[in-house]
Amino acid sequence: MPSYAPPTKDMMFVLQDVLDVQNCDIPGYEDLDAEFISSVLNESGKLAGNLLAPLNATGDAEGCHLENGIVRTPQGFKDAFDQVKAGGWPSLDCDPEYGGQGMPFVIASAVTEMFSSANMAFSMFQGLTHGAYSAIWAHGSDAQKQKYLPKMTNCDWTGTMNLTEPHCGTDLGQMRTKAIPQSDGSFQVTGQKIFISAGDHDMAENIIHLVLAKIAGAPEGIRGVSLFIVPKFMVNDDGSLGKRNNLSVGKLEEKMGIHANPTCVMNYDGATGFLVGQEHKGMRAMFTMMNEARVGVGVQGYSQAETAYQNALAYSKDRLQGRDVTGVKNPNGPADPLIVHPDIRRNLMEQKSFIEGARALTFWGAQLIDRAHRLKDQDADGLVSLMTPVIKGFLTDKGFDMCVQAQQVYGGHGYIEEWGMSQFARDARITMIYEGANGIQGLDLVGRKLGQDGGKHVMAFFDLVRAFISENKDINEAFGKDFLEPLKKASKDLQGAAMYFMQNGIKAPNNALAGSYDFMHMFGHVCLGLMWARMAKASIQVLKNDKSDAAFYETKIATGRYYMQRQLPATGLHLARIQSGADPVMVLEAANF
Amino acid sequence: MPSYAPPTKDMMFVLQDVLDVQNCDIPGYEDLDAEFISSVLNESGKLAGNLLAPLNATGDAEGCHLENGIVRTPQGFKDAFDQVKAGGWPSLDCDPEYGGQGMPFVIASAVTEMFSSANMAFSMFQGLTHGAYSAIWAHGSDAQKQKYLPKMTNCDWTGTMNLTEPHCGTDLGQMRTKAIPQSDGSFQVTGQKIFISAGDHDMAENIIHLVLAKIAGAPEGIRGVSLFIVPKFMVNDDGSLGKRNNLSVGKLEEKMGIHANPTCVMNYDGATGFLVGQEHKGMRAMFTMMNEARVGVGVQGYSQAETAYQNALAYSKDRLQGRDVTGVKNPNGPADPLIVHPDIRRNLMEQKSFIEGARALTFWGAQLIDRAHRLKDQDADGLVSLMTPVIKGFLTDKGFDMCVQAQQVYGGHGYIEEWGMSQFARDARITMIYEGANGIQGLDLVGRKLGQDGGKHVMAFFDLVRAFISENKDINEAFGKDFLEPLKKASKDLQGAAMYFMQNGIKAPNNALAGSYDFMHMFGHVCLGLMWARMAKASIQVLKNDKSDAAFYETKIATGRYYMQRQLPATGLHLARIQSGADPVMVLEAANF
Repeated sequence: MPSYAPPTKDMMFVLQDVLDVQNCDIPGYEDLDAEFISSVLNESGKLAGNLLAPLNATGDAEGCHLENGIVRTPQGFKDAFDQVKAGGWPSLDCDPEYGGQGMPFVIASAVTEMFSSANMAFSMFQGLTHGAYSAIWAHGSDAQKQKYLPKMTNCDWTGTMNLTEPHCGTDLGQMRTKAIPQSDGSFQVTGQKIFISAGDHDMAENIIHLVLAKIAGAPEGIRGVSLFIVPKFMVNDDGSLGKRNNLSVGKLEEKMGIHANPTCVMNYDGATGFLVGQEHKGMRAMFTMMNEARVGVGVQGYSQAETAYQNALAYSKDRLQGRDVTGVKNPNGPADPLIVHPDIRRNLMEQKSFIEGARALTFWGAQLIDRAHRLKDQDADGLVSLMTPVIKGFLTDKGFDMCVQAQQVYGGHGYIEEWGMSQFARDARITMIYEGANGIQGLDLVGRKLGQDGGKHVMAFFDLVRAFISENKDINEAFGKDFLEPLKKASKDLQGAAMYFMQNGIKAPNNALAGSYDFMHMFGHVCLGLMWARMAKASIQVLKNDKSDAAFYETKIATGRYYMQRQLPATGLHLARIQSGADPVMVLEAANF
Repeated sequence: MPSYAPPTKDMMFVLQDVLDVQNCDIPGYEDLDAEFISSVLNESGKLAGNLLAPLNATGDAEGCHLENGIVRTPQGFKDAFDQVKAGGWPSLDCDPEYGGQGMPFVIASAVTEMFSSANMAFSMFQGLTHGAYSAIWAHGSDAQKQKYLPKMTNCDWTGTMNLTEPHCGTDLGQMRTKAIPQSDGSFQVTGQKIFISAGDHDMAENIIHLVLAKIAGAPEGIRGVSLFIVPKFMVNDDGSLGKRNNLSVGKLEEKMGIHANPTCVMNYDGATGFLVGQEHKGMRAMFTMMNEARVGVGVQGYSQAETAYQNALAYSKDRLQGRDVTGVKNPNGPADPLIVHPDIRRNLMEQKSFIEGARALTFWGAQLIDRAHRLKDQDADGLVSLMTPVIKGFLTDKGFDMCVQAQQVYGGHGYIEEWGMSQFARDARITMIYEGANGIQGLDLVGRKLGQDGGKHVMAFFDLVRAFISENKDINEAFGKDFLEPLKKASKDLQGAAMYFMQNGIKAPNNALAGSYDFMHMFGHVCLGLMWARMAKASIQVLKNDKSDAAFYETKIATGRYYMQRQLPATGLHLARIQSGADPVMVLEAANF
């Protein structure tokens, strides 16, 4: 069975050496000294490694079960959930006004990665609750906040988001769920929602469903959608639970993975709901949830790769197979360990260089989110908003790929469920789909984010890369050659693609849309190239003053060099694909496929 | 539930218009006129679409079960197997001396693709039997052939191959299974074998296991391995079945996919076995099976992509979601079909252009195998031997990727087992692993095949590409620009990589081995580029004389253009990765990962 060891040291490196969190000017960050961060990471890491990880494979094998309308989670889940709650982990970055601990999002992100690596299906209960919490926090009335948030902050009540219906997912304008106003100001919500993660379960006393629906007489399409709080049990004014609401689980889906998280068909049959924010402005509120959720899904993507990698690495050191062609490495054994073989190394380096780059990108993104929220910095908000589809789309595509590669290290054993590598791939697969399938992320990036505020944010990104290159060109020759030159080339490719879209997308939008997926990947590569350059720089700086942990920092530089030499050149391929334009993609009549 | 329609017309196109099978000089090919081929494809296609495809999802859900030592296959499998046998399909290309029909391998390959697309787990019973048949046919004694082949030809008895043991897969030199000579010339075989597909089941009256084992006193390592026939039931001299042999199923593995094919742990406890071929020369015989099996696995890889593509395409025409940005296409519906969206097109074109190229490559490979066998053409043998790891490794990696892409078209529904798209990805995943994990295919290609016979075969491949380009440069301007130029560039990249290996791999073999996986993919792209150029040429030729089916041939050209513009440029990226050499891959100490 696979195991998970929290990568605390790698996280500390990003937070301290690269992002230098304690010394930046974001309110709340001044508390993030090394001792504090490490105590948070060590404690959450213990929980992840010792409590959640052992439940991952058993949860997958057992799955959830629908019994008399109630979903039963796998053995051990409720106990573990209680322990996570007892540690106060769900409330880490929640508002102290509602019982939260008010910590920066960047720290919560590190904890999220660990919990997700250890047991993604389990961590979703908490993640979705946080998303629902955020939507109510941002858009709910004071009374609603007082009523729901204190219980949601630490997952005494969990949350869900209800968007999809059988006939519409991406295109929510087609929504049929109806909300009929009642005389007491509430609404009667009727309709069917599908793909509702954690739609029901036995780990919390109440579930707060956030449901998109159309109020009778609303405008057509997406502009007529409103958001409602629809609790499983009604909440009395004194906070006690009242009667069961008119909603039920219609079905539990059989899925490729995340078996331990129940994906429900939810039926709302005149359920009592309460409008959140303004009528017909539900999408705005839902996007609050979704943007947060998208970053979270990006974390899930690489978090699965992290745990898969750890196990593949251990296997590659343990499994004796064949001999090193350059000379026997394990003369007393029947064969050398797998890790001596160049193609196994290639496989492991792909994983390692991706995962560490992904982590740095995500933590940087979280820092930008903190900057946006805590300093009301609109530039930071614009930049992270630009990078959100990249974090979601690129990190989940690659995260899944890396799980598949890790599985490959095991040979035949990788295909046998008992070894656990299949689960990482099966679980990671959903991250490419939910919270907006990755094709939609590409569209969001190219069709919306690129031109947002007159293209200001993408320009800021390019400026940032350019400034980094020019400010650091004198670090040393190797850094220039190994990091800055490839970054410059990749960034130029990305600019070339943006330029192509500007020149050709205006006359024919399909020229841009046909390249949106490639652009998302290209952007992801440039982001990871930038993060590796930053990590290499930080490592060089540490090594200048302190060689006591030289192997760690030299390994960072070597891993970064791998990324720059073997992964980053993908931007050239993506550019060529983009520049071939819409014609090769669109030329066929649908009937001729 | 997904469906499958045999791509008979696409197959006919490759066989007739591209490979022109009837008019080439291979004995037996003279019978391959259009009417004959189409009757074979239509009949096998009916069986695949109507009988085997409907059992695919049910077989996956039900799986196999071990009951009192006997494996039970899913409902409907035995009946279907009987119908396939009644049609004589397993014996298609078997030796008439043993009841086979003696048809060319190229035709059998087309039938294999269909059966595998329709139901991969089912088709494996037959595929493995054919592999065992071939090994006995090539290496068994006359008496053994007489005894076993007539029953194996048409799957009255099925076959298995037993290589892997718990502690060794790729590195078979570590094998522990022992064979002790008996006074009657037989052997007592004792040991445990794992990952034995179709190791036991209820569809045939006997199972002929081919087992690798070491005879007591054999040389160390791989040079001391012998091959044995170990029947489940002993076979009397009159052909009737005798007593049960001392072998049993130790366990049935739970796998990511191919649930309907039992993957068994096989225990041989002094089982009676019969030596095939010479003592200690078992690997040679096993390679006969394995080379055939590797081409077969390549077919499995793209065959899963084919059926996944068919369903994704149908879904993309059926599912209404969003509007075409260039103008509404379905004004009377609530939204336009998915297929109007450029990113969905990109996804579908990736699949379509890969699958059709893969089919052409495989059929060409099968033609080369026929040429090698039927004309004793050693050049053809060398060329197809060079391409075998490419067909296995590249077509399965990409085949799996394309299943994942097809799943993506379905959005959330792609993740729900009920829709069937998950199964294609889960089933296809094994093709990257078994019959030599794809990393091993890369090693085989670079470490063995590239230099075989002094590099003669890879030179022949380059000559062939060069000759094609020079012979066809006057077809027309568009063909030159759209097909020959990209092919020339990609082939030059491939030669650059081979040159890099020659110059740098001799002084340090890791410089070649660290690039072996990329080289395999690069080679695959060039092969598919060549096949698309051949398909485009054939289409242009047909269109010159006959425009009655213009849309079909123009679609071929457009699909090929997509491949040349959007997939083939990957060779540049692979070359850059290869030319970065061993250093980025090998620089870390194992302890520093």
